[in-house]
Amino acid sequence: MTLTPIEFYFDLSSPYAYLTSTWIDEVAAKHNRWVKWKPIMLGVAFKETGMKPLFHQPLRGQYGERDYLRSARLLGVEAVVPKRFPYIALAVSRGFYWLEENYKDHAVDFAKAAFKRYFCDGKAPTTDTDMASLAHEVRVPAKELIEGCSSLEMKERLTFETEKAIQEGVFGSPFVIIDREPFWGNDRKEQIERWLKIGGW
Amino acid sequence: MTLTPIEFYFDLSSPYAYLTSTWIDEVAAKHNRWVKWKPIMLGVAFKETGMKPLFHQPLRGQYGERDYLRSARLLGVEAVVPKRFPYIALAVSRGFYWLEENYKDHAVDFAKAAFKRYFCDGKAPTTDTDMASLAHEVRVPAKELIEGCSSLEMKERLTFETEKAIQEGVFGSPFVIIDREPFWGNDRKEQIERWLKIGGW
Repeated sequence: MTLTPIEFYFDLSSPYAYLTSTWIDEVAAKHNRWVKWKPIMLGVAFKETGMKPLFHQPLRGQYGERDYLRSARLLGVEAVVPKRFPYIALAVSRGFYWLEENYKDHAVDFAKAAFKRYFCDGKAPTTDTDMASLAHEVRVPAKELIEGCSSLEMKERLTFETEKAIQEGVFGSPFVIIDREPFWGNDRKEQIERWLKIGGW
Repeated sequence: MTLTPIEFYFDLSSPYAYLTSTWIDEVAAKHNRWVKWKPIMLGVAFKETGMKPLFHQPLRGQYGERDYLRSARLLGVEAVVPKRFPYIALAVSRGFYWLEENYKDHAVDFAKAAFKRYFCDGKAPTTDTDMASLAHEVRVPAKELIEGCSSLEMKERLTFETEKAIQEGVFGSPFVIIDREPFWGNDRKEQIERWLKIGGW
């Protein structure tokens, strides 16, 4: 039996998705799996469920910041709360899919660099200058990437991936699907590890 | 230094609070702490945050059931999804505080029995017959307990405890506060254990 890949859906502006991005590949590899990274625009999904970005909810806002930083420390990874939150991660998400089609081996590195820029350095990557800097970091041609991001094809691709994700039941970020079993949230790491180990419950 | 008790806030109709109730005392004892159990009426807190009971939210509903059962299996505890969900846990919550004042040593056992009745047997304890049955189970006088539950004093006590909890920042169930540090959700067990072990981060 060939094992299916692990699907990892995330919004590049989602704090807990950043945390999951730091361990998902390693956990998958431990069980001879690989991860299909899928950036989506979570705002669309929010419209379906009526939810708001975590740090913006009344009462939960302050708690969310605290819990996010605590969760990062538990994983032993660097994290800051960006001053500008949330940001619309359109350019980087389109950039990811453009790289996936044109420089396949650099797409995941690019997503990781975008996460790091926002959640470690606190800077939202949105401008052409930001994109060029990220392109440089993951060694792909900056000009091509910037053009790719604004192409109609990539706009449509990102919309398509987001709608497809929602159809498959994705309603939050991070959202991991393994063998059709859904796991929502960075805090489902233990359940994911158990699922990969024993292949069910 | 005297260690302060761990505050455990919960709605007796909350699935994840039931799960936390199965381990919180043991985890506390391991670190020479004790737990102050505090049933509250979460509906009031929901009005503040605009949230709905988990199983009722669009998209999240089906996932919630699945995740709840998966979380129970991870802890190795029995659990069913009650057909009638949620229920208004007024009588049992008032009963808890009445016992706390009159049969102190039986209050926590009573809360555990009420959780079990709903989340293992699938029956919402709301009627006098249900209360009598629970009273019998934890060996307290049924008639006294039933009268206590409907007293004005206990009505006011439950309202007071709920309002006080909200003032202290409680916005969900289960909600655990240790040394002023808030932890929301059954899935914060690992963070709670770490906090108790090293007293911070």
